[in-house]
Amino acid sequence: MATRRIQRTEESRRLLVTAAAELFAEKGYRQTSFIDIADRAGISRGSIPWHFGNKLGLLEAVLDEQVQGVLTGVAAPAGERPGDPLDQVMGFIRLPVTRLFITLLAEAVEGDSPIREHYARLHAALRQAVRARIPAQALPAGTTPEAFTVLLVGAVIGVHAQWRVAPEAVDLDAVRDAMRTLLPAGLGQA
Amino acid sequence: MATRRIQRTEESRRLLVTAAAELFAEKGYRQTSFIDIADRAGISRGSIPWHFGNKLGLLEAVLDEQVQGVLTGVAAPAGERPGDPLDQVMGFIRLPVTRLFITLLAEAVEGDSPIREHYARLHAALRQAVRARIPAQALPAGTTPEAFTVLLVGAVIGVHAQWRVAPEAVDLDAVRDAMRTLLPAGLGQA
Repeated sequence: MATRRIQRTEESRRLLVTAAAELFAEKGYRQTSFIDIADRAGISRGSIPWHFGNKLGLLEAVLDEQVQGVLTGVAAPAGERPGDPLDQVMGFIRLPVTRLFITLLAEAVEGDSPIREHYARLHAALRQAVRARIPAQALPAGTTPEAFTVLLVGAVIGVHAQWRVAPEAVDLDAVRDAMRTLLPAGLGQA
Repeated sequence: MATRRIQRTEESRRLLVTAAAELFAEKGYRQTSFIDIADRAGISRGSIPWHFGNKLGLLEAVLDEQVQGVLTGVAAPAGERPGDPLDQVMGFIRLPVTRLFITLLAEAVEGDSPIREHYARLHAALRQAVRARIPAQALPAGTTPEAFTVLLVGAVIGVHAQWRVAPEAVDLDAVRDAMRTLLPAGLGQA
């Protein structure tokens, strides 16, 4: 019985995180209420504080879960990842989770935003994962790994933004090819 | 008297556009009302429809005005622009108007957003202005000017986003240097 209860508890938590991720992406963090989330998940409202403390706790759980898959893919050693690294970068641009990131970004840039710090940690984790995959000797002279990483992560964010607003105006395959020609040997090559 | 009235009309229009630009950047497009804008501008609410038709018309005026300065700077022939082109790109990252762009972006990516089309036009105008400054012979083989432009504009958007959320984590001067080493000769050089 105890095992069954734990399974049910984990299942509710999972359903709530999934519902919150969808709603944050659709309506933003601020405009989403516990009622919306509970209704979408089909779970009683009272269980949200029990699982997550408050809405920020729930956001943290959403970011952890949604980002984990992305980070795991980016951070895995080259030998364990199939395919072209640049195809994987471009794959990130197409991921539905980037919709959540963009929606939250607008709230995060406000000076007094409660989610700003969480968002900063998300960017930092992304940069760290990308940086771990860049061999120091592949970097051109005069470039720090930190700055290079900001540029690479920035390009992904900004290309996504343009593609998202007008998919017909952005040829993602051509952008990948452009990125390949610009990156130093050992980074852009398959 | 007629001249005076025209001056007053232009002055009200200018005040309304400035107030709307500030409020859209602070609260987003959807959450800003005519009342907010009129209060901030110190001008009667009724004059907004008279000047702009509706809120979308006002947004268009805001984007036109705010973007114009940026585009003019980017699009001016190299000889007429002082300083390093990359410093100018990095200058764009620091502009307050990018706050407006990021806030609106989150609303624009929603499928049914009324501002999506306006935002797509803004990106297109930015790309066109940047593209006009890229000499075709400076591009590496296998890269189209369109794709290269998406990448460059994307890097600016995405670096801004990271800097905005955590200024202490992003060294903009180092990012400019990294950009310079990656860009082909004739583009990144002063």
